[in-house]
Amino acid sequence: MKTYSLKNISDKTLNRLFSRPAVDSSRIQKIVKPILEDIKQNGNRALFKYAKKFDDFNGKSFLIHQTKITEAAKNIDKELKQAIDTAFSNIYKFHKRQKPKSYTLETAGGIKCRRSFIPIENVGLYIPGGSAELFSTMLMLGIPAKIAGCRRVVACCRLKDNKVSPALAYSVLKCGVNEFYNIGGVQAVGLMAYGTNSIKKVDKIFGPGNQFVTAAKSLVSIDSAGSMIDMPAGPSELLIIADKFANPSFIAADLLSQAEHGKDSQVILITTDEKFAEKVSNEINKQIQTLPRRKIAEACLKSSFILLVDKIDDAISLSNNYAPEHLILNLRNAKKITGKIKNAGSVFIGEYSTESLGDYASGTNHSLPTSGYSKAIGGVSVESFMKSITFQEVSKKGFEKISPAVIKLAEQEKLQAHANAVKIRISK
Amino acid sequence: MKTYSLKNISDKTLNRLFSRPAVDSSRIQKIVKPILEDIKQNGNRALFKYAKKFDDFNGKSFLIHQTKITEAAKNIDKELKQAIDTAFSNIYKFHKRQKPKSYTLETAGGIKCRRSFIPIENVGLYIPGGSAELFSTMLMLGIPAKIAGCRRVVACCRLKDNKVSPALAYSVLKCGVNEFYNIGGVQAVGLMAYGTNSIKKVDKIFGPGNQFVTAAKSLVSIDSAGSMIDMPAGPSELLIIADKFANPSFIAADLLSQAEHGKDSQVILITTDEKFAEKVSNEINKQIQTLPRRKIAEACLKSSFILLVDKIDDAISLSNNYAPEHLILNLRNAKKITGKIKNAGSVFIGEYSTESLGDYASGTNHSLPTSGYSKAIGGVSVESFMKSITFQEVSKKGFEKISPAVIKLAEQEKLQAHANAVKIRISK
Repeated sequence: MKTYSLKNISDKTLNRLFSRPAVDSSRIQKIVKPILEDIKQNGNRALFKYAKKFDDFNGKSFLIHQTKITEAAKNIDKELKQAIDTAFSNIYKFHKRQKPKSYTLETAGGIKCRRSFIPIENVGLYIPGGSAELFSTMLMLGIPAKIAGCRRVVACCRLKDNKVSPALAYSVLKCGVNEFYNIGGVQAVGLMAYGTNSIKKVDKIFGPGNQFVTAAKSLVSIDSAGSMIDMPAGPSELLIIADKFANPSFIAADLLSQAEHGKDSQVILITTDEKFAEKVSNEINKQIQTLPRRKIAEACLKSSFILLVDKIDDAISLSNNYAPEHLILNLRNAKKITGKIKNAGSVFIGEYSTESLGDYASGTNHSLPTSGYSKAIGGVSVESFMKSITFQEVSKKGFEKISPAVIKLAEQEKLQAHANAVKIRISK
Repeated sequence: MKTYSLKNISDKTLNRLFSRPAVDSSRIQKIVKPILEDIKQNGNRALFKYAKKFDDFNGKSFLIHQTKITEAAKNIDKELKQAIDTAFSNIYKFHKRQKPKSYTLETAGGIKCRRSFIPIENVGLYIPGGSAELFSTMLMLGIPAKIAGCRRVVACCRLKDNKVSPALAYSVLKCGVNEFYNIGGVQAVGLMAYGTNSIKKVDKIFGPGNQFVTAAKSLVSIDSAGSMIDMPAGPSELLIIADKFANPSFIAADLLSQAEHGKDSQVILITTDEKFAEKVSNEINKQIQTLPRRKIAEACLKSSFILLVDKIDDAISLSNNYAPEHLILNLRNAKKITGKIKNAGSVFIGEYSTESLGDYASGTNHSLPTSGYSKAIGGVSVESFMKSITFQEVSKKGFEKISPAVIKLAEQEKLQAHANAVKIRISK
């Protein structure tokens, strides 16, 4: 990983370093759009066509029957079952507290207003499949959906050899998924957003995927016949702020854990100590040798870097500007500076809080905003699976009190019929 | 308004009736996209070009200085000022309760997880302008932004004769807007999403607009260089469920108050009483005669209808399926059925709760999900102007307890570097 010093580089270089590896989303969207249109128009016929074309799927149905899932779950080994139980328990506990509360209040005499939270009825979860099915994502999406109380939870995952693994099956059952489909990619998004003759569409789609899945999610989110989405998801990111008191081999391992995610991922270390930076760099070169996903990690490191700064406050300000998905604070006084963190998805404090813990089992969600979106949105939560409705009930007295103001305001905005709906009630 | 009876029509007719007036969003997006691209590439130069072309804007700057706003606000008449104060007070009171609470908890011994809510730093408010500036929208967006504590609130509104009206100026000041620009349409969305040399971009854009503004908001929301948005906004809608105990002239006035919004709006009445339906229809024909926006209302009524049902439960089920932006329940036992409402933006209960009250001053927000989006999202709230960040701090003991599970899960997902970041900490 290349090392730069903040005081020796121009603003232009700084901007270039912090710009994420370019994803030409517009180009990908152009490829994905006709596929989605086809699915929207032709339903199952189009779905089977693309599942065959892109995923070599030859089955007669995407649906995996509940009995098959129950069977598969029985084969889970004991240690793995315990690990999933631990993760489930921590994630459940942390998310349970997020369930939003309804309230009623009188804003003025006789004007009773209420806000109620209601689970989204139909939700769709995209679970990345392929070489390894990400059952951890099943937990991260399925648990808040369960807590929210969504009536119908649909999950899509392209299964290796068309078989659901024991770990995924066990997770699916624990989360109470109602319908499980063996389908991935753009097809899965199309299925959930538009439905078919036999499958009802969902109201909101969740979950991470590759750039085609992301483009598909974006496109259905701006089609009123489509579905809402949790957030636009891009390649994964990690920024670490560390001082010389951190262990260089820990930091190197942390950077690599994120670098193995994808070639277009980005990892950044900001530190105040030059020697420490050198040690981390050497450790990375050592540790990367034995990684099974070494090639991916190496590609990622090309757009990654180490930056030397004078003060930790500089690091914080750069981090807030970058708005990383994951932020590790491995500093002597890490706790003291957490209040200064304004933009990030999830923050890991101290020597032992490596990102993997949050990815799997500490309790926080791993579906987090990338691409700087943490400036405007947080990770997936129970609220993501609910929506609010407001109610108002106005008594005759309340009406009499508020009506002159409403008539005045409506007439000022030249909306006479709005004013009339109030006026007509006065004379009675 | 045409009247149908549920038992005499086919499912096909029913679906046709409840389908909203078609908006070809894809076509509009195609028109809007190159304009946004131009603004993204060329900043101010493009902005001035389109402001001149679409809005006949000849000024040298879009910025309206604070002193001009303060001056304009001084000219507000007393009655209007009082009306705005009433609205502000009720909206503020209702929204204040929405501020989400941060929490910390131990998910397991030594694993401390936290969720913090932080205001979005830069927010942009789109205020519809033209013949009448919708200062009520200024209140509905500006108040939750103020409560959330957003550091920089930008507002855009195309001002009639380039002059800010006293009502809008007074509302802008009450909400504490930081930057106010005299610009509307696609240009305003482009300015907020991409910024210019002189204006910093915003992180999230709020507010309703015409179909071009809506398309522009959609497009910038799926461009990683753009901004997030509050929600996709379509034409306004009202569904009323009423029984024979309701006053037909009230119901007619309610339907017209929504119908005057736009030609592509839709209003629906579902009732159990045929005679009542007839009376409402006659009242509409009478009341519409004197409306200044009669032509718009008449166009809207063409895609609107009255539906006769046997039971109120049928009406509720149809309403939940339609997911209206506004829902009026003018029934003898309205309060008893509110628990059955699953999808709606805002609900108005009883004889005196006409929609205009909520549009202006009861306290609830009037920025609500249209086009059936209330199945998945609620109206604008204080949370819309904030985002959450999760934090975790794991002690050595907590780490020792959780690490075997995390290693097991990471290795099962074939993410060895994720497992390594845990393993490397064990030996120390």
